[in-house]
Amino acid sequence: MLKPDDATIGILGGGQLGRMLALAAARLGFKCHIFSPSPDSPAFDVVHRVTCADYTDTGALDRFAADVDVITYEFENVPAETATFLSARRPVIPDPNILAITQDRLTEKNFVNDLGIRTARFASVDSAAELGRTLDTFGRPAVLKTRRFGYDGKGQIILRDGADLETALERACLEAAWRDIGAQPSILEAFVPFQCEVSVVAARAQDGTVECFDITENEHRDHILKISRVPANVSSAVAAEARHIAETIAGAFNYVGVFAVEMFVVDEGSKQTLLVNEIAPRVHNSGHWTIDGATVSQFEQHIRAVAGWPLGKPMRHGRIEMINLIGREVKTYEQWLAVPGAFVHLYGKAAVRDGRKMGHVTRIVGEAR
Amino acid sequence: MLKPDDATIGILGGGQLGRMLALAAARLGFKCHIFSPSPDSPAFDVVHRVTCADYTDTGALDRFAADVDVITYEFENVPAETATFLSARRPVIPDPNILAITQDRLTEKNFVNDLGIRTARFASVDSAAELGRTLDTFGRPAVLKTRRFGYDGKGQIILRDGADLETALERACLEAAWRDIGAQPSILEAFVPFQCEVSVVAARAQDGTVECFDITENEHRDHILKISRVPANVSSAVAAEARHIAETIAGAFNYVGVFAVEMFVVDEGSKQTLLVNEIAPRVHNSGHWTIDGATVSQFEQHIRAVAGWPLGKPMRHGRIEMINLIGREVKTYEQWLAVPGAFVHLYGKAAVRDGRKMGHVTRIVGEAR
Repeated sequence: MLKPDDATIGILGGGQLGRMLALAAARLGFKCHIFSPSPDSPAFDVVHRVTCADYTDTGALDRFAADVDVITYEFENVPAETATFLSARRPVIPDPNILAITQDRLTEKNFVNDLGIRTARFASVDSAAELGRTLDTFGRPAVLKTRRFGYDGKGQIILRDGADLETALERACLEAAWRDIGAQPSILEAFVPFQCEVSVVAARAQDGTVECFDITENEHRDHILKISRVPANVSSAVAAEARHIAETIAGAFNYVGVFAVEMFVVDEGSKQTLLVNEIAPRVHNSGHWTIDGATVSQFEQHIRAVAGWPLGKPMRHGRIEMINLIGREVKTYEQWLAVPGAFVHLYGKAAVRDGRKMGHVTRIVGEAR
Repeated sequence: MLKPDDATIGILGGGQLGRMLALAAARLGFKCHIFSPSPDSPAFDVVHRVTCADYTDTGALDRFAADVDVITYEFENVPAETATFLSARRPVIPDPNILAITQDRLTEKNFVNDLGIRTARFASVDSAAELGRTLDTFGRPAVLKTRRFGYDGKGQIILRDGADLETALERACLEAAWRDIGAQPSILEAFVPFQCEVSVVAARAQDGTVECFDITENEHRDHILKISRVPANVSSAVAAEARHIAETIAGAFNYVGVFAVEMFVVDEGSKQTLLVNEIAPRVHNSGHWTIDGATVSQFEQHIRAVAGWPLGKPMRHGRIEMINLIGREVKTYEQWLAVPGAFVHLYGKAAVRDGRKMGHVTRIVGEAR
């Protein structure tokens, strides 16, 4: 167990997730050192020690490692070489090998299927021609996604119904889609007519104990999470299955820390089933409600796990809603300040950009259920 | 209203109160700059900009003022000259004139009495001889307190029953007490046979709105707060009177920010009455439960007030207990980590000393009442 009076936790990535991790670490007495390539990283403001350098700057990585006791990340697209370089010097938690799997949609989905857990139908696609052939098999609509570096709908193209298109035009469209996605290794995913999207945010401790937060129902707008509601409107059997899936994946990874599994709830006639959409090997936007809505937050759970501490037992304060403030919506914070029981969080980002997550609001909207 | 995306709040003092203020400011998107003379200030770890300099270093104060938009403090014994120097450069909130009153027990108690609010009987004492005469009038036990710089029982001597002492010995004892207190301007306070000690922590906004947290019952050990329980075990009439007293004092000061009023609950036969013991013109240890036990914390309320924002409406999550971890008690944090619904806070202090506040634990111990 790390001792809080003299230990420093290194965090790779300087966004709002790193900021909230550092704030949670501070409650527990830990110091944090943030490593981020971006000079205006929101997390820099809440720690005393920062490194602003590229992830490939081995000198800076070396000094960073020397200054900290353990290293974690808030950003899953840290280059694998960076994580490997650091793990030769300090414990990197969760294990960098997990990053290598989850950074690639194809290996991630194969990993999940190999555990007997279902996903939407998918296939590897490496050319416009292959895209066309797979599309013929899967039917439309379908979603073309880059294997790597996708988030918030970036690196995704929905291929809608094109049955009435002429063949030449159809081929031109496929080639355009393939160019748009960057003509890079991708997957095609069959469209899932889901009832709702849910996620399980959970923590796994170094001793293998898992604590799941209550399953969250997520509403997206323009591919970006807009609202999370807890508990999700699913049966207790589905909630139990979701937790079981999360525990199975974390166990297979021998994971340490907080992670999220996003799933689609699909109506298969007689019953609801779950298809895994994505694994996030880090704290997750759909777990932000836990800061104010539960007796232990996802950020504190992650710090506890990374520090080798026991996890907290999360208890929920009621029915909760978390609303992201995206882009210019951040200006509504003044209205939210006046709402009783609304918790306003702003990430200290100076530049407002469309689609940029600027803050969030958590509300207790009713008694615990 | 300060804008959170580009505003910096300056905080005088670098202890755990400054640390928790900075953490609350960070949630709202503000940057903080901590000014403290002590190089191992716990608050330094949670902000990016710090000044470690003496309160009389005008060059450092000047640079500090130039870097911030507004200045507040976590420590009420900031020299009056420091506050005056800074207030010529930036808004200092709450007003430094209030510090001048509350830094001196005699002026504070006169101020309170002038508002028609009761305190224990007290008198100014400036010599051993005067101490003896006042003691004859008040009777024993009584408490000798320095007028300035007292906290956590420092600068206090209880003069217990000495009726059976010989006159010469008695005089020697008085002279010893007077020397022990530092032979400085003091007050003698009649002992109050109180039923319990309570406090009201409240916030007053720039528009004069006041929001009180629920009245808290405080248990001290060796003159240091050990446990706070909310709600206090007093009648609703007493709770209403306590709130009224807090509002009256804050209004008279035209106060902005969070403050605490400590009071004794005294049984006067037919009814309970309240005597004001002390005013703290800052966030207060007996309000730490609000971080995890209420929908808005005392720290956030203070930042909101200082920033010219509207206050939050505090709602309590249940019956709450806050337990200070003092000195070596900090080692019990591992046990507390395993208790469901217990929130552990550690202040990141490396040196454990007797009587030093090292952290606290908040527990939700039952349904809201």
